[in-house]
Amino acid sequence: MRCRKCGGKPAVNMPQHKLALCKDHFLEWIPEQTERFITKYEMFSRQERVLVAVSGGKDSLSLWDILHRLGYQADGLYIGLGIDEGIGYSDESRRLTEAFAAANGLKLHVVEVEKETGQTIPQLARATTRGRGKPCSVCGLVKRHEMNRIARDLGYDVLATGHNLDDEAAVLFGNTLTWSGEYLLRQGPVLPGTPGLARKVKPLCRIYEREMTAYALLRGIEYIYEECPFAAGSTSIYYKELLNKMESDRPGAKLSFYLSFLEARKSGLFAQREQVQAELHPCTNCGQPTSAPGLCSFCRMKEKLAPTVEGRA
Amino acid sequence: MRCRKCGGKPAVNMPQHKLALCKDHFLEWIPEQTERFITKYEMFSRQERVLVAVSGGKDSLSLWDILHRLGYQADGLYIGLGIDEGIGYSDESRRLTEAFAAANGLKLHVVEVEKETGQTIPQLARATTRGRGKPCSVCGLVKRHEMNRIARDLGYDVLATGHNLDDEAAVLFGNTLTWSGEYLLRQGPVLPGTPGLARKVKPLCRIYEREMTAYALLRGIEYIYEECPFAAGSTSIYYKELLNKMESDRPGAKLSFYLSFLEARKSGLFAQREQVQAELHPCTNCGQPTSAPGLCSFCRMKEKLAPTVEGRA
Repeated sequence: MRCRKCGGKPAVNMPQHKLALCKDHFLEWIPEQTERFITKYEMFSRQERVLVAVSGGKDSLSLWDILHRLGYQADGLYIGLGIDEGIGYSDESRRLTEAFAAANGLKLHVVEVEKETGQTIPQLARATTRGRGKPCSVCGLVKRHEMNRIARDLGYDVLATGHNLDDEAAVLFGNTLTWSGEYLLRQGPVLPGTPGLARKVKPLCRIYEREMTAYALLRGIEYIYEECPFAAGSTSIYYKELLNKMESDRPGAKLSFYLSFLEARKSGLFAQREQVQAELHPCTNCGQPTSAPGLCSFCRMKEKLAPTVEGRA
Repeated sequence: MRCRKCGGKPAVNMPQHKLALCKDHFLEWIPEQTERFITKYEMFSRQERVLVAVSGGKDSLSLWDILHRLGYQADGLYIGLGIDEGIGYSDESRRLTEAFAAANGLKLHVVEVEKETGQTIPQLARATTRGRGKPCSVCGLVKRHEMNRIARDLGYDVLATGHNLDDEAAVLFGNTLTWSGEYLLRQGPVLPGTPGLARKVKPLCRIYEREMTAYALLRGIEYIYEECPFAAGSTSIYYKELLNKMESDRPGAKLSFYLSFLEARKSGLFAQREQVQAELHPCTNCGQPTSAPGLCSFCRMKEKLAPTVEGRA
């Protein structure tokens, strides 16, 4: 197979699209596709201010690169988690994110969880009962809260994350195995904003992980190769492996699973959202919308921690 | 692990239920479970006449055995498909079904597809464009039609099939990967009757395939060991393999997938059926309900075949 656009030497072969492309055309194609999905799902316009959540990984740095090249007003937000685990994971990912921002003249906001809460993510996880020894649940909660806070306080219209198709298909797969109604009704390329919460979008949601890796490598983006050291053994990795098996048996299986879900939901397969989703109220401390009465989960966690700061030493 | 009821030597160990049972208690337990599901899902009463679709396989013969032991009015229906493929598949399955009925003094109806349509299933498959070379699609259509016809003509209230949990989970998995709304809304332990169509029930839908094999073996039921020769390479076998992998990684995964689906649907996850399902009309030839105007799929197939009987020779 040769590059479909110029007949040149192919750099990336995508059996699920029956498409091969040379390096230059692949580096054009990924932003074109991203632009197509931004438009199709009405994610944002060039007049809106976009905050990209960047972790230092291939997906989020590539997303920032793509949005910048496409001419969107996209600033970055890096959230320092304080994860070291002997490999300096957070230090290295911050360094790579700052280097990328500097090299491209982009504006980057940095939030350190330890500064905001007094503890790093691993310390928070040990100090709470969330997540049974794994910090992933606490980490998700803190990141969501900080992203929402910065977007609101700095007046961004949209929060963009680097979730790729493999991420989205794995989450959908997990929610389907348990038939988690609330999540099935919400998951998608766009989560509309509500008073106090910026719209959330996933411009890479239809692009395979493997293609995002190829993009970052071919574009020469320096990103952190290591997965988060706490990700090993997670259910999302398990679901990704199952989906990879299906994909290798039937190229396109992941994309078709995700797209047919979006299509079925749009055609009215599910009950109206109002009937299932819980009502939201502003948190009495931070003002972010929450389904719990009183404090949101983040502020409840912080409140519990307040008297015990020994983890900080 | 010992038998939970008597502490005796275990014959069947069921990690997904954290349960082991000796032969005698297992042979009691499976009918008890079946009775529980018949009641829970309001499948039928002892006053109703049940027609069991028996293929000569372990599931349907065991179901018939169980319903008979539980004191239900259950007659059998064997549909001869005319599948030989060098192993005398249909002949052998008919012989085993008739032997089971005779040994237990049960009433068995026999329908031969070749007598009804002039052709065997493999011939019908070759003569139509359905199923791209595989007879499974034609076979399903013909079996459904004949089961419905006999149930209606002989005045049965209910049609019971031997689908086990593995069958149901695989079908659900397939319908979920493609998000086939119509099927997701219909699949379940009970499909209510409509004018001209008997209620359809699956009393074994929560029992693992492996347990049904154990039941047939321990009960000494002689059943046909071979799978249908046309089943090899089918998508349902592929989905069963994937589910088996999940089950072996996480015992109970299949059951939880199926049950959480039923639960979510009951709790109103999906839109009301009327909004999605097509309206049904009686077929102008056979009177069975169909979504197509005029003839049903079965009668359309027969009409197309009428002029060409060369396949019969």
